[in-house]
Amino acid sequence: MKTPLLKLTSLVMLLVLAGPAFAQEEEDLLDILVKKKVITQEEYDQLRRQYQKRPVPLPAPEPAAPPKPTTTEPAPETTAVTAEEASDVTVITQGALRGRTRDSAFIFQLGGRLLIDGAVYDSDVQSLGNGAEIRSARITLEGTVWNVWDYELEVDFAENAVDIKDAWLEYREFEPIAIQTGNYKEPFSLEEITSSKYITFMERALPNLFAPSRNLGVGVRIWREQWTGQLGVFGEGLDANEDREEDQGFGVTGRFTYAPILEEERLIHLGAAGSYRRTGDNDVLRFRSRPESHVTNVRLVDTGDIVDVEDIARAGAEAAVVWGPFSLQGEYIRTHLDRDSGFSDLAFDGYYVYGSWFLTGESRPYDDEKARFQAVLPKSIVGRGGYGAWEVALRYSGLDLEDEDIQGGEEDNLTVGLNWYPTRNIRFMANYIHADSERLGMEDDPHVFQIRSQIVLE
Amino acid sequence: MKTPLLKLTSLVMLLVLAGPAFAQEEEDLLDILVKKKVITQEEYDQLRRQYQKRPVPLPAPEPAAPPKPTTTEPAPETTAVTAEEASDVTVITQGALRGRTRDSAFIFQLGGRLLIDGAVYDSDVQSLGNGAEIRSARITLEGTVWNVWDYELEVDFAENAVDIKDAWLEYREFEPIAIQTGNYKEPFSLEEITSSKYITFMERALPNLFAPSRNLGVGVRIWREQWTGQLGVFGEGLDANEDREEDQGFGVTGRFTYAPILEEERLIHLGAAGSYRRTGDNDVLRFRSRPESHVTNVRLVDTGDIVDVEDIARAGAEAAVVWGPFSLQGEYIRTHLDRDSGFSDLAFDGYYVYGSWFLTGESRPYDDEKARFQAVLPKSIVGRGGYGAWEVALRYSGLDLEDEDIQGGEEDNLTVGLNWYPTRNIRFMANYIHADSERLGMEDDPHVFQIRSQIVLE
Amino acid sequence: MKTPLLKLTSLVMLLVLAGPAFAQEEEDLLDILVKKKVITQEEYDQLRRQYQKRPVPLPAPEPAAPPKPTTTEPAPETTAVTAEEASDVTVITQGALRGRTRDSAFIFQLGGRLLIDGAVYDSDVQSLGNGAEIRSARITLEGTVWNVWDYELEVDFAENAVDIKDAWLEYREFEPIAIQTGNYKEPFSLEEITSSKYITFMERALPNLFAPSRNLGVGVRIWREQWTGQLGVFGEGLDANEDREEDQGFGVTGRFTYAPILEEERLIHLGAAGSYRRTGDNDVLRFRSRPESHVTNVRLVDTGDIVDVEDIARAGAEAAVVWGPFSLQGEYIRTHLDRDSGFSDLAFDGYYVYGSWFLTGESRPYDDEKARFQAVLPKSIVGRGGYGAWEVALRYSGLDLEDEDIQGGEEDNLTVGLNWYPTRNIRFMANYIHADSERLGMEDDPHVFQIRSQIVLE
Repeated sequence: MKTPLLKLTSLVMLLVLAGPAFAQEEEDLLDILVKKKVITQEEYDQLRRQYQKRPVPLPAPEPAAPPKPTTTEPAPETTAVTAEEASDVTVITQGALRGRTRDSAFIFQLGGRLLIDGAVYDSDVQSLGNGAEIRSARITLEGTVWNVWDYELEVDFAENAVDIKDAWLEYREFEPIAIQTGNYKEPFSLEEITSSKYITFMERALPNLFAPSRNLGVGVRIWREQWTGQLGVFGEGLDANEDREEDQGFGVTGRFTYAPILEEERLIHLGAAGSYRRTGDNDVLRFRSRPESHVTNVRLVDTGDIVDVEDIARAGAEAAVVWGPFSLQGEYIRTHLDRDSGFSDLAFDGYYVYGSWFLTGESRPYDDEKARFQAVLPKSIVGRGGYGAWEVALRYSGLDLEDEDIQGGEEDNLTVGLNWYPTRNIRFMANYIHADSERLGMEDDPHVFQIRSQIVLE
Repeated sequence: MKTPLLKLTSLVMLLVLAGPAFAQEEEDLLDILVKKKVITQEEYDQLRRQYQKRPVPLPAPEPAAPPKPTTTEPAPETTAVTAEEASDVTVITQGALRGRTRDSAFIFQLGGRLLIDGAVYDSDVQSLGNGAEIRSARITLEGTVWNVWDYELEVDFAENAVDIKDAWLEYREFEPIAIQTGNYKEPFSLEEITSSKYITFMERALPNLFAPSRNLGVGVRIWREQWTGQLGVFGEGLDANEDREEDQGFGVTGRFTYAPILEEERLIHLGAAGSYRRTGDNDVLRFRSRPESHVTNVRLVDTGDIVDVEDIARAGAEAAVVWGPFSLQGEYIRTHLDRDSGFSDLAFDGYYVYGSWFLTGESRPYDDEKARFQAVLPKSIVGRGGYGAWEVALRYSGLDLEDEDIQGGEEDNLTVGLNWYPTRNIRFMANYIHADSERLGMEDDPHVFQIRSQIVLE
Repeated sequence: MKTPLLKLTSLVMLLVLAGPAFAQEEEDLLDILVKKKVITQEEYDQLRRQYQKRPVPLPAPEPAAPPKPTTTEPAPETTAVTAEEASDVTVITQGALRGRTRDSAFIFQLGGRLLIDGAVYDSDVQSLGNGAEIRSARITLEGTVWNVWDYELEVDFAENAVDIKDAWLEYREFEPIAIQTGNYKEPFSLEEITSSKYITFMERALPNLFAPSRNLGVGVRIWREQWTGQLGVFGEGLDANEDREEDQGFGVTGRFTYAPILEEERLIHLGAAGSYRRTGDNDVLRFRSRPESHVTNVRLVDTGDIVDVEDIARAGAEAAVVWGPFSLQGEYIRTHLDRDSGFSDLAFDGYYVYGSWFLTGESRPYDDEKARFQAVLPKSIVGRGGYGAWEVALRYSGLDLEDEDIQGGEEDNLTVGLNWYPTRNIRFMANYIHADSERLGMEDDPHVFQIRSQIVLE
């Protein structure tokens, strides 16, 4: 008696598929069936218990309608995905639009982001130029094909120009090891690796100019419960290709992180990264930085062109602590340049440290696969009766671009930040920055007030 | 007997879910069940009646498959959307692809447009240059997150260049009041506010050069049954940011409309708009206009650079009438420039008026929330045995760019238009324009014949 | 007895809807029903047989939830698509995301491609510049509206610049005749017409510079079982529009193909194409070619500017053979220029021939509607326990840009290629090229080694 009974479960599951519309009905059916004597009282009881315990079953598959017979869409053969597999897609939207086959063999997500900034400057020496801009306007395709092949293609259109961001392919068959190729961030600096969607202040700290950021390359990464390692070989970035008659330079970059504490809302993150790069036919380098504000184009510190650079070595140390709603984060980066033609070597460095506090009790979430921070999830939502998440933050950063003959200047910035996250997708930010710079004997200490409206589709 | 019977409804509803494939079967099942004596004849009759009356029930929800366990996709907490909500998505396509959660809390739409133009010129004095171009090629993301947050990100790629169009975020919790920020059209001029997808002629009329169009700003709008009001503060547009060392100018713009008649296919629309803008560090302005044809780059009227502009005041009056297949529309715009350095003030103006007639009986539809026209819906469709909608139209427009020392010229255009809408998404347009211009004593009166093929995905 | 029995099928179909989760259960239900005596053993047997034979039924329709009442989304009238039609969408993803209404009246697909190249040059005379680049990064919208209107909008962002590729609208009511307008490839050259996603080597052969490729135009195509014909009138390309004061040139291009053998894995393809173009106000032409490698910008052969060109006539002959895993393909193209101002006429030509062999037994698939090759489908998949498809190929190509006063040079290239297709969407390519060029008496014979990582979302 028991076997057919268990199998009758399928009938109930079926009804469950009918969902909320049948909120009461699915159990009522059992009433009917037992009354009709189609099932016994025993069966009834057992099914009821089973039903109440069982997870909601997966939805019905949606087999493809017979495709329009066009030869441009060849029918997959043998090992190709079947029409049934390909069309058994669950669609999700929480901002982005995501389609996923039942078995997650194929995932496709279309998302994007829009960051709108405004800035008012209390200029000191140089005029910084009040105004507004679209800081970032991106469309992002990302997903998985055939289980183990991940990809991303993200293009930014800010300033009415094309800027390809992430554009890579990753092979994940041997997780937790993945092999990646394309345009992606060299593994260097916690703040750089954390997406601009999730950084705590509107712009990254002053020493961020030392991080290599995205270049075309190939690399491997590995992640374990508490640690991650990443290593890659990188050519030059996309804009380096303009003169294609010169050999590009290339570099090797690696990052290693360890999280001695990695709990829900509690984290200690430690990391170190190193990068060695040989210049190609183009051996000119320049380091310069805006005052942690992007509306202006003025750089208070600027080395100008440094010629005859043979190689660049970078080292970075990073640490972060999350303790419930509180967090601390800091980095130190040092960059060493070897020059030929008798020029002496150069060393520049910078650091930052900051703290953040969620007044509303949220905690900065950590992505332990990539050892970086990710999206804050407000405890209450504007649009569902809540008031969102509120965060205050304070940062101090310093940068020294002076060494030997290079007088790039020094700058120290103090930033106060206030962030409001009405929902997971939306954030409003306000930053007040006091910059304190000196270059070629001239002090330039402007104040900046800037705000951002941000929506992220993911 | 009645209660279990009613509950059996759930079984029938379930079958209804199987949809058209069961067009007959769902009722046939009742036949089976009654024959099998699982239900009585009474029950059968009642269920049949119920079935025939009842609306088609909502489909089964699609609970998300357990997500791929990756820490980059954090599980939403507490107030976050649940997996069930996010994945209970209805997908629609009538051109664009749209996903919508059951409760419409999240909507995501991907669409676009493609406008392909060709023009032949019967030049008079200046050569206008026959040719073809892609007038517009846009990709558009738009939608809603968390019920009350709307957004749009639209990028145009025509002329192989990036041109961010709408890029904004809107908060609609307190409808019919909405607060908007980002890059969007300043509320000025009915023809400007009406999307280029829906304007009656291929290009907007001559005085359109006075409309401020899109700029970065923040504003509020309110709409009621018969009237709308919109007000905003705007910085400069996206291309104004090139030199970031100068302060941007800013302006305040408002528009108010009233529709004394607002019925199905009958409309009287009246509107007035005003705009006041102070220039920033860049105080140079230029007004010029193509002859309502975009393939050429020649401007028959052109003020050249007007320097030392302190502020710009604009005023516009607009009216439109729709009476079944007939419609009339007209606007008058006046622009006043204050100059310093002893230059005298300037005033320019322009107007247009046009009529349109749908030979096939359609009527121009009005968007009463935004007080503008929207997509024409053909009564018959090419591709479904119909011949589409056909519209003829006639426009007269005038522009005067002469005042004081500025000899920008005068132009009057007469345009005859023929539009064919084979479907809601597709439109073919043909325009014949006779331009009549005079500048610096030289008359230049070319004739233009131009056509457009347009597809809109929305 | 038979009729109700057949109708019970609907019950089974319903269960089938519950899909893989019911892999066993759907037949088990029959067990239950027969045991419960709801159906007889006869019925049971027949249903089982039926079930095993029958195609998977269509999924339940998803009637749209009542749309958010906003006037910007007008309710379709009369002949407009109904909400039910529009929302009865099957979503598929095998890389791209595709939504299709039940009746295929509306199809919407979002896809793209990413090609990442690296090249190392053993330069001879001119330095070619080792490096890496994103060769192609495209986002593609394509689909159908109202049954008979197809469209595509594809934008490439490689080199951080916009390059609109396919952007067209096609009317297919009278299949097998279609009318197309927009930016698309002039019908000339098998290798040109075959998508860069599917060509056998990383770059097309040397004579490809003679193919007109994409221009704005309008044309007609017809296809039958074994032959195709295509003819169009084309203006100039998108970048030709920069100076809009000049008249554009235009041309007429046609291609005819015949496949005397067109079987599964067996093909003989023959084709001929011709193109005649009159230059517009811009009568300067230039032919030049990279050495079948795109990372470098160096052209070993280059005619320089050829002025006073009145018209260009091109003729091409093409042939291809597929015999199981083996294939051969070759083309010859001749270009004739008429010049005025007393310059003598010019003729240039080029050809290529290549063979390919799938070591793993796949066969090059042919698109008989467009007479070109399409995506290779590996017999085994990496990510599903397989090793993918492996192909080796060898090509010889020649180009002669010397005639009369024009000393553009001659080049012959030999290429060895190895392709690995781990899945249908992904391909890794390695090419070794030995170029043999002579121009102005100088020989320049570099060697090229280049690799590509490619992912295609379609």
